[in-house]
Parts: sequence; C-alpha cells; structure tokens
Amino acid sequence: MPAPASSEGQAHRPVVGVVGAGQLARMMVPPAVELDIDLRLLAARADDAAAQVIPATMVGDERGLDDLQRLASQVDVLTFDHEHVPAAHLHTLESAGAVVRPGPHALPFATDKAVMRRGLRDAGLPVPRFEVIEAVDELSAAVDAVGGWPVVLKTARGGYDGRGVWVVETIADAEPVFSARVPVIVEERVDFVRELAAVVARSPSGQAVAYPVVESVQSDGICVQVVAPAPGLAETTSTAAQALALQVASTVDVTGILAVELFECADGSLLVNELAMRPHNTGHWTIEGAATSQFENHLRAVLDLPLGSPAPVATAAVMVNVLGGDLPDVHRALRHVMARDPAAHVHLYGKAVRPGRKIGHVTVVGDDVDDLRRRAQHAADYITGVIDE
Amino acid sequence: MPAPASSEGQAHRPVVGVVGAGQLARMMVPPAVELDIDLRLLAARADDAAAQVIPATMVGDERGLDDLQRLASQVDVLTFDHEHVPAAHLHTLESAGAVVRPGPHALPFATDKAVMRRGLRDAGLPVPRFEVIEAVDELSAAVDAVGGWPVVLKTARGGYDGRGVWVVETIADAEPVFSARVPVIVEERVDFVRELAAVVARSPSGQAVAYPVVESVQSDGICVQVVAPAPGLAETTSTAAQALALQVASTVDVTGILAVELFECADGSLLVNELAMRPHNTGHWTIEGAATSQFENHLRAVLDLPLGSPAPVATAAVMVNVLGGDLPDVHRALRHVMARDPAAHVHLYGKAVRPGRKIGHVTVVGDDVDDLRRRAQHAADYITGVIDE
Repeated sequence: MPAPASSEGQAHRPVVGVVGAGQLARMMVPPAVELDIDLRLLAARADDAAAQVIPATMVGDERGLDDLQRLASQVDVLTFDHEHVPAAHLHTLESAGAVVRPGPHALPFATDKAVMRRGLRDAGLPVPRFEVIEAVDELSAAVDAVGGWPVVLKTARGGYDGRGVWVVETIADAEPVFSARVPVIVEERVDFVRELAAVVARSPSGQAVAYPVVESVQSDGICVQVVAPAPGLAETTSTAAQALALQVASTVDVTGILAVELFECADGSLLVNELAMRPHNTGHWTIEGAATSQFENHLRAVLDLPLGSPAPVATAAVMVNVLGGDLPDVHRALRHVMARDPAAHVHLYGKAVRPGRKIGHVTVVGDDVDDLRRRAQHAADYITGVIDE
Repeated sequence: MPAPASSEGQAHRPVVGVVGAGQLARMMVPPAVELDIDLRLLAARADDAAAQVIPATMVGDERGLDDLQRLASQVDVLTFDHEHVPAAHLHTLESAGAVVRPGPHALPFATDKAVMRRGLRDAGLPVPRFEVIEAVDELSAAVDAVGGWPVVLKTARGGYDGRGVWVVETIADAEPVFSARVPVIVEERVDFVRELAAVVARSPSGQAVAYPVVESVQSDGICVQVVAPAPGLAETTSTAAQALALQVASTVDVTGILAVELFECADGSLLVNELAMRPHNTGHWTIEGAATSQFENHLRAVLDLPLGSPAPVATAAVMVNVLGGDLPDVHRALRHVMARDPAAHVHLYGKAVRPGRKIGHVTVVGDDVDDLRRRAQHAADYITGVIDE
C-alpha cells in the first residue's frame, strides 16, 4: 500500500516512481528521505533490494504496460533502476501524458550498443572503429573495416558486466555468436591504458554537473574497484573526459545521471565504451566522497530541481564492490570490518549471497590513495570471505 | 505489514525496534538502509515523520504495554525516538527477556530532572546548585540554599524545548508553578557564557566515542543553530567537556547516543544542564560533518556493533533548524535554496508546517565558519518565509 502522498501544508511534495528494485533504487532512499521525496516503486518481488525499504512498493511486472501505467498514474515522474523496460511502453506512457526521465528517445543509447555507437559517431564523438552485422559471412569485411584481427564482438542488446562480449581471433571462434541472428557489433580491440568513467547529471532544463573523473578497475568485465579521482590523470584528459560526457548527455538528451565509460589510450585520447542512464557503479563513491551523491542528483534531475554540487569532499575516495563469495552471513563479517576500520563505509544491499553477485560495496575517503585502496579491498575481501583476518 | 526479516544467506540481519516515529527515528533510516538493518517502528499515526518511510510500521500506542510487547517480540533490540515511555513497561519487557537500549535504569536520567541532578551530583559531576521541592512554602529556603534570587524553576518531568522552565525573581512570580503539586527543581541562575553540547555514543560492551564539542545557540529555549566545533573553544575545555560526557554516560550506564548539554561559564568551568538519550538536535550536523553520523552510531551502539569514527570530515559544520513559519509549501522554497547554494544540505522531516514546529534543518560544511553560518541561516530563513530573496 502506498503511504499517503501528502498532508496539510505540504501540497507539493514531489512523487517519483522508480521502475525496478535493485540496489540503485535502494540507494535513492537516503536522499529521498532527506529531501522528503515520496518514492513509489515497481518491483518484481516483494523482497527485492529496494522493495525491502520503500513502503510504497507495488509488486508487478516491470516490463508490463498495465503495471507501468498503474505506477505512472500516481507519480510526478517515472525513472528507472535499470534500462530494460520496453521502449514502446514508455512511448505509450508519454503519449498519455506521463513524464518519463530519462525518456524513451534517450534510453536506446543505453540499451542498444548499435544505436549508441552510430549515434555518437554521427555526432562526431570518439568511439572505437566498428561495424554492425548480423551474419558470419559479413564478418571478414567488417574485420578489415575496423583494422583487422583480433576484434571484439558484442551483441547489440542485453549484455552487461562482461556478458555478451567476446574477443575473437578467427572466424571459427566467432561463429557461435552469430547463431542467434541478432545484430552484432564488430569492434577494433582498443589498446587502452585503463578504463575511466565520467559521471554527469543533467536536468530537463539543461543544467548539468560533472563529477570528478574516476578510474574503473575491471576484472572479468566486472567493475571491482573505483578510484576517485583517477590517479595521475592529466588535467587536460580529465577536462576532456568531463566535456565529452557532457556532450554525450546533450547529444542523447538524457535526464538524470549519465555514466560514460571510457577507454584511456596511451596517447591520452579517449574513446567512449559504454553508457548507462541511471546511477552507476562508478559513482557509488559519491555517497560519502562528494557534496551531493549521484543518487540525490538523479532525483533532483528527474524532478527538474537545481542540481547539487558534485565537488569532492576529500582528496580521494576508493570504492570496492562486495561480490557474493563463500560467506553467507555478511553481517557477522561486518562486525569485524567495523572494529578494524571505524571510518570504512560499508553498504549492504539486502541481497541473498550468491557467488559473483554484487551484494554491497565499501567506500573509504581520505588523503592517501594507496592506503584507501588497501583498506577498502581488505574490508570487501573480509566480507566475502576471501581473507579471514 | 512488516517486510520479510531475512532471506537465504542472511540469517543474521539485525532487527531494531524503534518506539516513536518523529524525525529522529526518520533519520535512522539512511544508515539502516546502508547497513541492511531491519527497522521496525511503533508509531502513533501512520503519517508520522518516520512512519512515512519505514515499511515495517505498526500503528499503536507508544506508551501501551501491549503494543510495546508486540514490537519487542519481533526485534533484537528496542530503542527510542523519544524518552516518554513508561519505565514500568520497560522493566516488564526486560523481565520478559527483551533487550531495551538505553535501559529503564538509565532513561530516568533523561526524563526526570530531579533524578538526573541528584544522580550527577552524587557522582561528583558538576551541576548547578539546586533543591527539589513540591510546595511554594519551601521556596524561600530553597532560594537561599542555591544562592538567592533570581532562580530558575523547572518541573522535574515533561518539559522540553524551553517548556516547563521559568526564571523568577519573587515568590509571587513563582506561585503558579506550584499549583500542580509536582516536584519542582529550584536552581541557581547560572551566569554562563554560552551553551555547549557534547554528544557521545556508548555501546553495552563499554566502547565509547565522543564527537567534537559544539556550540548550541538557543532562542526562547529552543536550539536554533549548532556550530561544530564550538568556535574558539579552548582545547582544555573541549577535552573536559568530552571527558565529562563520557563520565556521565558511564555513570548512568547509557547505551546509544547520549547528548550532554552544558553551560560554559566565564572561568571556563562546565556545568551539566540537560541530558538526552537518543540522537539529539545538537548532533544533526554529523550526518554530513562527521565520518559516522550520530544516527548510525546510535544503531551500532544499541546492536553492540563496533562504533564508527566520530571524526569531523571538514574544518567546520553549521546546522540551522527549520521551524515552521509563514510558508506552508516548503518544497517550493527548497527549489530556490538549491539553486542558490548547491552545497547546502536541506533535510525535511515530512511534517506539516505549524508555527514554531521543527520541520527540518539545513547543514553546511566547509572552512569558514562565518560563511557557513550565513549560508545555513539564509537557507533556513528562506524555507520558513522569514526572507523572500
């Protein structure tokens, strides 16, 4: 049952509907509580991460028009925990007068890599060389067009956290990818130095703010550690990355948080790798590390409220993901971590432990990046059971 | 309906029951969400500040044994938004095996000023000179005993935010106070320089941490502004205030947050004025201004988890209360404040606006205390309608 939306003297309490109930929706709760924003949730299950902590949770089909309409009818604006909502439904909702942010015109840039690559290239923004094909007999020409073997193959839709991505050296290796007869992107394998991410927030009235550019350390295609700001990043590169992210935000006309994942090449040049149109793993450090968190700025942006300062509050911040490991009882491990490091910020998402599943993260802020990395990694490793002291 | 308490792989998610649903319970929500602590609430009304944002809210009688028992039966520990719960009920719950923190042995020190004054004096801790009497014919002797007119009269129970406190100069002025035939404390009027507050957290296993000592600026007996740390406070006084608060915490054997409100006298000496055994208005600045907020440390303490660091994260923080004023629509005013000061942290409690009612607060952190005071005051004044630009 939704909580009452308003009472006397508060006629204009804003109401935000969130589709999807993972940790991203869950982490919108603290700023919503602080700013008295009424969150209404559409969750697949009553025990989803965000459903546990949002009173006005409707359990239903996050991809079904009926339930989306039901949520839309009681909120000022609809936004998302994830981008996997049928665009056709969102267009239908918009036609009926619902406010959808980010809008269905923007979301394909986050859900379809072919749309994204083409859109950014057409706008003159830097992306890896690529071709989009559907059949293996087109592959040879595509490989030539992007500069030769090896190449990276990506399904245009549905991949995340390293799924749907393959590095291949021969046509034989590539063949299984084409069995599904879906669009596949054939991309040069970029010889990058490291991965960066530039997170920005943009409001419908066009205001935008850019967070410090971070380094995203990946393992098996999953972001495992984020360092803010990216250590040793040249100021020109940092500025260029922020400018590029703001250009992307404007080009795709996004509202809310946009995370632009970037390859930093040896010559300092940048290429756009992926986009996400919602609070993103590379921005979790902003909860303690920036004046305004990405979750608060996402809510402000979709409500067209003035954006909060993205300024860092310390010299550096390090975030390490807690992936489900050997220890089922993370709360028991938490006690040890709290005793060892009283300034570590542990976030648990209320999710059952399954191997490799993102169940939480740890952030530490301070002056000495090496020390922060050690502390954050130790806390995360202890919670997952990688180490036991 | 309470949310499910746990799921696979999370057998030991801690469950905290909170009696009372004001802004203090509401501000426990962000750290509870982050640490995956399951909050269960007993609220007088379904639209109370905390009830709006806690799914597992039971509407009932916060002073009734049946409802307290019902809450106690489903939690690991009971704690409080306020101290106004009958001690007899809490003893009954404890006898039945419930864990009550702070316990009924400690709470009278926060609910009965006569108990508090006597207890601290007997422990050798500094309090104003006082006598406890019940009838006006005892007044003259009591006034002599505390050093003569004028004196401060306080009802032992029930007063807060300046209510239940009178400064009187004659017996005739004092007479109405005694019409209720309840215990009245007759106290010297302390010639203090300013009011300070020392907030500490203490866990059942005896661990304790002390936050920086703050200045509490009062108007008509209500705290209107808090500056952390107290400007120009001598280090010896600061250390003495923290030590005194820790001594009080130990003397009364409190668990959770203890706020000790202090008079700073011209000679640098300190006298205990009031105690609160819960997160306190003078600690709201810790949400953004300290590594661990008082709300998180209250939850950690009552769960006997290791306490978080109370270290400040900036040179200074200023908090200004938002009291209900002329503007009923605080959200409209909030938009202006956000645009003017992107780094101001506004907290709204979801409460209907009534004149003088605490409906929110603003915190700013930074280096220049004068600038912070101006900015926090401006934001609060704009929201309440005191100024319109």
